[in-house]
Amino acid sequence: MHIILLSGGSGKRLWPLSNDIRSKQFIKIFKKEDGEYESMVQRIYRQIREVDKDAEVTIATSKTQTSSIHNQLGEEVGVCVEPCRRDTFPAIALAASYLHDVKKVSGQEAVIVCPVDPYVEKEYFEAIKELGEIVLRDSVNLAILGMEPTYPSEKYGYVLPENQEKVSRVAAFKEKPDAKTARQYIGQGALWNGGVFAFRLSYMLEKAHELIDFKNYEDLFVKYDTLDKISFDYAVGEKEKNIKVMHFQGQWKDLGTWNTLTEAMEEPCVGEAILNETCENVHVVNELNVPVLCMGLKDAVVSASPEGILVSDKEQSSYIKPFVDKISQQIMFAEKSWGSFRVLDVEDESLTIKVTLNPGHKMNYHSHHLRDEVWTVVSGRGRTIVDGVERAVAAGDVIKTPAECKHTIIADTELKVIEVQMGREISVQDKRKFPWSQSAAFPVPGTDSTQT
Amino acid sequence: MHIILLSGGSGKRLWPLSNDIRSKQFIKIFKKEDGEYESMVQRIYRQIREVDKDAEVTIATSKTQTSSIHNQLGEEVGVCVEPCRRDTFPAIALAASYLHDVKKVSGQEAVIVCPVDPYVEKEYFEAIKELGEIVLRDSVNLAILGMEPTYPSEKYGYVLPENQEKVSRVAAFKEKPDAKTARQYIGQGALWNGGVFAFRLSYMLEKAHELIDFKNYEDLFVKYDTLDKISFDYAVGEKEKNIKVMHFQGQWKDLGTWNTLTEAMEEPCVGEAILNETCENVHVVNELNVPVLCMGLKDAVVSASPEGILVSDKEQSSYIKPFVDKISQQIMFAEKSWGSFRVLDVEDESLTIKVTLNPGHKMNYHSHHLRDEVWTVVSGRGRTIVDGVERAVAAGDVIKTPAECKHTIIADTELKVIEVQMGREISVQDKRKFPWSQSAAFPVPGTDSTQT
Repeated sequence: MHIILLSGGSGKRLWPLSNDIRSKQFIKIFKKEDGEYESMVQRIYRQIREVDKDAEVTIATSKTQTSSIHNQLGEEVGVCVEPCRRDTFPAIALAASYLHDVKKVSGQEAVIVCPVDPYVEKEYFEAIKELGEIVLRDSVNLAILGMEPTYPSEKYGYVLPENQEKVSRVAAFKEKPDAKTARQYIGQGALWNGGVFAFRLSYMLEKAHELIDFKNYEDLFVKYDTLDKISFDYAVGEKEKNIKVMHFQGQWKDLGTWNTLTEAMEEPCVGEAILNETCENVHVVNELNVPVLCMGLKDAVVSASPEGILVSDKEQSSYIKPFVDKISQQIMFAEKSWGSFRVLDVEDESLTIKVTLNPGHKMNYHSHHLRDEVWTVVSGRGRTIVDGVERAVAAGDVIKTPAECKHTIIADTELKVIEVQMGREISVQDKRKFPWSQSAAFPVPGTDSTQT
Repeated sequence: MHIILLSGGSGKRLWPLSNDIRSKQFIKIFKKEDGEYESMVQRIYRQIREVDKDAEVTIATSKTQTSSIHNQLGEEVGVCVEPCRRDTFPAIALAASYLHDVKKVSGQEAVIVCPVDPYVEKEYFEAIKELGEIVLRDSVNLAILGMEPTYPSEKYGYVLPENQEKVSRVAAFKEKPDAKTARQYIGQGALWNGGVFAFRLSYMLEKAHELIDFKNYEDLFVKYDTLDKISFDYAVGEKEKNIKVMHFQGQWKDLGTWNTLTEAMEEPCVGEAILNETCENVHVVNELNVPVLCMGLKDAVVSASPEGILVSDKEQSSYIKPFVDKISQQIMFAEKSWGSFRVLDVEDESLTIKVTLNPGHKMNYHSHHLRDEVWTVVSGRGRTIVDGVERAVAAGDVIKTPAECKHTIIADTELKVIEVQMGREISVQDKRKFPWSQSAAFPVPGTDSTQT
């Protein structure tokens, strides 16, 4: 089974957990059986593996998410990086040519596309597997999953099947309706279009070449920013005649707002929180290391992260976006491919961060023009390279890297460092990267960084 | 006018702003005309000065509050330090002998005692001034302020005047009643006993010597921990026959709970906060440097500090204490006589704090047995002394002080330092202080510290 998971853009509807650089699919909010928490992307990836351990998963996403994906799913997961955002049709075209040209997948194989963020159970993955089988067995060009509507939503497009069989030809696609029209559609047996579909790889490549002038994956990648923003439904789905829909009645929740997200939470609290006995229908997600105490609240969500604190009536929480749009602030926390960083203190001419490097990872070899840095290693073992000179470092060591000095740090074990940046203009743009040859002095498998 | 301000113990009812080491009277929550915020103790001190610029104010308080008092009111304010907590009678006896023996105040002068934490206006200070005049003019031993009750409170004792004149002899004191009895008292013209009273200094010294065996201030200070815990009302007030009460009808608010505190706030928000248009009767006090967003809340208080986050229905907030008692955590922020510190990061074997020293102040000269420290100066200018060697320091300088090494830092301008503490056992107890002679090398007026 080949699956393309579409990992969408940054959203602010789940602020303060999601923001410009951290998308909702990376928030660790779902409790696993072992008591640990996992994110949407970790959950869906784990679920796919449980249904089909040999499933080949490719995540189609933007460059900004690559670090988080590798941080949460490991290095081996397939990632097809979009050079910029161009909506779902170009993204799927790029992923299809990546599978064919880079991964050498045969054009005769079925490929399933689904978003990374619905909250689903095992039955969903059985269904998408069946979707791929329908494509191959019934010789249709597209097989789409139609979700049983639970209310007349205005958020989704609708698919009208020709009949009420489990698998039926599609009579029509309907764009997002108003509530009244949605009720009519549902009365006619329409299903939600959740953006889940399957095709033969060769079909998608034909469609891609029909609509975009390109030679192969590499060529498409290079000209990606010249492509029009166009959705897959509009470019392909709604025009296709040889298409079937499979009726899906299992759980499928779109966790786009705090209201729906908290419905999917196993327990009322993630993180340190106390609810007194007069709280009713209250959920807390606390990423800070200090307690949240809630008293006498009803139908409320409280979320605290290094970015800020939300306290909202659950229904009101769906109107969050314009308020968050007005908040402009320093990014306070980010997951990177090599680990994570958290801002501890901001002053006019200094910035103090805590850097956690995962074992075997390193930063880029880089320098800054306008700032000096002081690293104090607080735990772990590793090595620094400063202007070409390597030294072993461990807890207690202090490394000074003045402006223009080239430096990097390599983690042999997990390595935690307090980094004090000092200068008149501190910005993430002030960074020059340098190559460093993979010599004996530098035997760690190289991974990338964009910060510090 | 001599005023003894009783600055009471740490309270948890205003958590997360108040805690074991930070009392409610030090929270900067009241907006001044210049747009800056001031605390209860700063407000009352400023108000006293506005009514009587020559008023001699002595703050009777515990050792733990001395740093905060000097931090907020300056070095010149009179402080009578109680070696330990022994309730109001010993505290007033100690302050009285301090005024007489140390400050050389004549026994014939009137002294006024009042708590540091009611929320009052100028009229209150006019009233307490009058209270002192009554003592001298009417030759009574005690003159007490009786507050006009606004509801049948169970929180206060009551004073029953003999008649309804503004100044009357006291008929009886009544202990905190239940609500029904309180209504009866109020029907009889009883007033709240807010712990505000005046006396001739010689009278209080007589009472002190009657009940406690001591020679003078110094002697009382030394044996303070052997004294019984006993309230002034019980030991003196309720037994005194030559006593008058003055009826006070002005504003007098006890800001002991979030509910009452928020009533005294000029604006709904202190600190960075956004309330959407559906919020009603919501107050936010945010001491963090990230925003708090509130949506759809009613009758709620939200407070965020380095210690934690409270989100509470206002009425429920008065039941906070047992919940806060269960929270045991690292102190995350403290004001000291020399400035303040804030915990930025806690790891098993390291603690990172930000130290802000006020200009002209310094830490004690000290060493640690079980931890190394690294200081990175991020702003300002000053000097360090490490094992007797002084050097000038400024932003960008790094100072390493391994275990056993003696060290201090002196701020010439405001000085901000990131301090990384590293060791297997990091505790505030691991500290040895050393004298440092006031030589030419060390000309800064010495002040004290108890941290770092």
